[in-house]
Amino acid sequence: MNVLIIYAHPEPKSFNGALKNLAVSELTSLGHQVKVSDLYAMNFKAVADSDDFLMRQDKDFLKYAREQKNAVKTNNFTKDIQEEQEKLLWADFVIFQFPLWWYSVPAILKGWFDRVFASGLVYTGEKCYDAGGLKGRKAMLSITTGSPKQAYGPYGIDGDIHEKILYPINSGLYFAGLEPVEPFIAWTPSHDEADRERYLEEYKGRLQQLLDIPSIPYHPQSHYNEEYQLKMEYR
Amino acid sequence: MNVLIIYAHPEPKSFNGALKNLAVSELTSLGHQVKVSDLYAMNFKAVADSDDFLMRQDKDFLKYAREQKNAVKTNNFTKDIQEEQEKLLWADFVIFQFPLWWYSVPAILKGWFDRVFASGLVYTGEKCYDAGGLKGRKAMLSITTGSPKQAYGPYGIDGDIHEKILYPINSGLYFAGLEPVEPFIAWTPSHDEADRERYLEEYKGRLQQLLDIPSIPYHPQSHYNEEYQLKMEYR
Repeated sequence: MNVLIIYAHPEPKSFNGALKNLAVSELTSLGHQVKVSDLYAMNFKAVADSDDFLMRQDKDFLKYAREQKNAVKTNNFTKDIQEEQEKLLWADFVIFQFPLWWYSVPAILKGWFDRVFASGLVYTGEKCYDAGGLKGRKAMLSITTGSPKQAYGPYGIDGDIHEKILYPINSGLYFAGLEPVEPFIAWTPSHDEADRERYLEEYKGRLQQLLDIPSIPYHPQSHYNEEYQLKMEYR
Repeated sequence: MNVLIIYAHPEPKSFNGALKNLAVSELTSLGHQVKVSDLYAMNFKAVADSDDFLMRQDKDFLKYAREQKNAVKTNNFTKDIQEEQEKLLWADFVIFQFPLWWYSVPAILKGWFDRVFASGLVYTGEKCYDAGGLKGRKAMLSITTGSPKQAYGPYGIDGDIHEKILYPINSGLYFAGLEPVEPFIAWTPSHDEADRERYLEEYKGRLQQLLDIPSIPYHPQSHYNEEYQLKMEYR
């Protein structure tokens, strides 16, 4: 398999860095091809703006998604965006490695989605969700948290990690056609060295069975009616 | 009241720009003091990294939150962060004006949270949620969407806008001590000029009764036990 790791942490010696390094070595030794986008090391531009296009279709009014659509057709993205899109299309499996900051991804990774997940490439008005442009590929979030596991349970103070916190992120992956699988979560790993070792072992096991990780259940588009509502029979 | 508007859209002529402009004029004419952080116009740095501190406490290992905590004590933030923090502390009410991109905020706004919502200022290990550093202030999300309202209902294809999509963002506000009120949502305003006018009128009404907007119900920290679980009596 071709595995792409999108990695977003400013400190190479962090536990996120350790998880990323483990994924590279383990997946390589398993015979997979691995590419890494180390967003901080690349100094990846986070902010979507008019500079993302070599030529503008409309110079008077920036409608970002429309410019993306045009750039896909005319090959008009800046090099950094184009390279990330090529890696995405190359990949069979994408791992996102990041710390949960403010209940979401770090800005540098949000910017990667805003800029790389382009209209006309990963989705169109007709082709999205299970028909999205990245169809046939899987994706997994691998995260670290600042609060303990209990805080993210159904009655936890921070809200259910699956149903509430990671839902918007996984929905974005799904909208682009990716099949999101259950996340790997290291709960507050910074506080305990034994915990870290345990998490690395656990992650190693996960990496060895990448294709066996259960997918997050999303209804296909065909289960919704023309008003975007889940049909009665699937509720 | 002192009202701070955090505005994140790359196109000044956008509908987000129109909503921001309306808020400035309407709130000013109502006698409020208004400040705007126009993140794109400010070329606001989105990526949290070691450059955010004039002096590092630990130069060998970047633990971002720890450096924030130190920077609060020693006045060591870069000027752009410090200015935003001062505006926040000045404000009684904060409006976040942005388009929903990939089920979340644009990266430039995520970076504003990552960098400005500093450990030691808006939260500590002990003071967070209803005891957070921004306690006594209210906040409102004002957003535009790319999908119609039905898609964001409880059975909508994109997931419930309140329970799923905006939940992590509002939780971040709440964690910092802000009291989030019900969001203002303009559903796919770009497609219909009459819709736009209607939304501007509706928003104007909202701005005239800013303090009457119902708050989003969050349990205070005292409703949770030591394991971060909602106590039985509040379920």
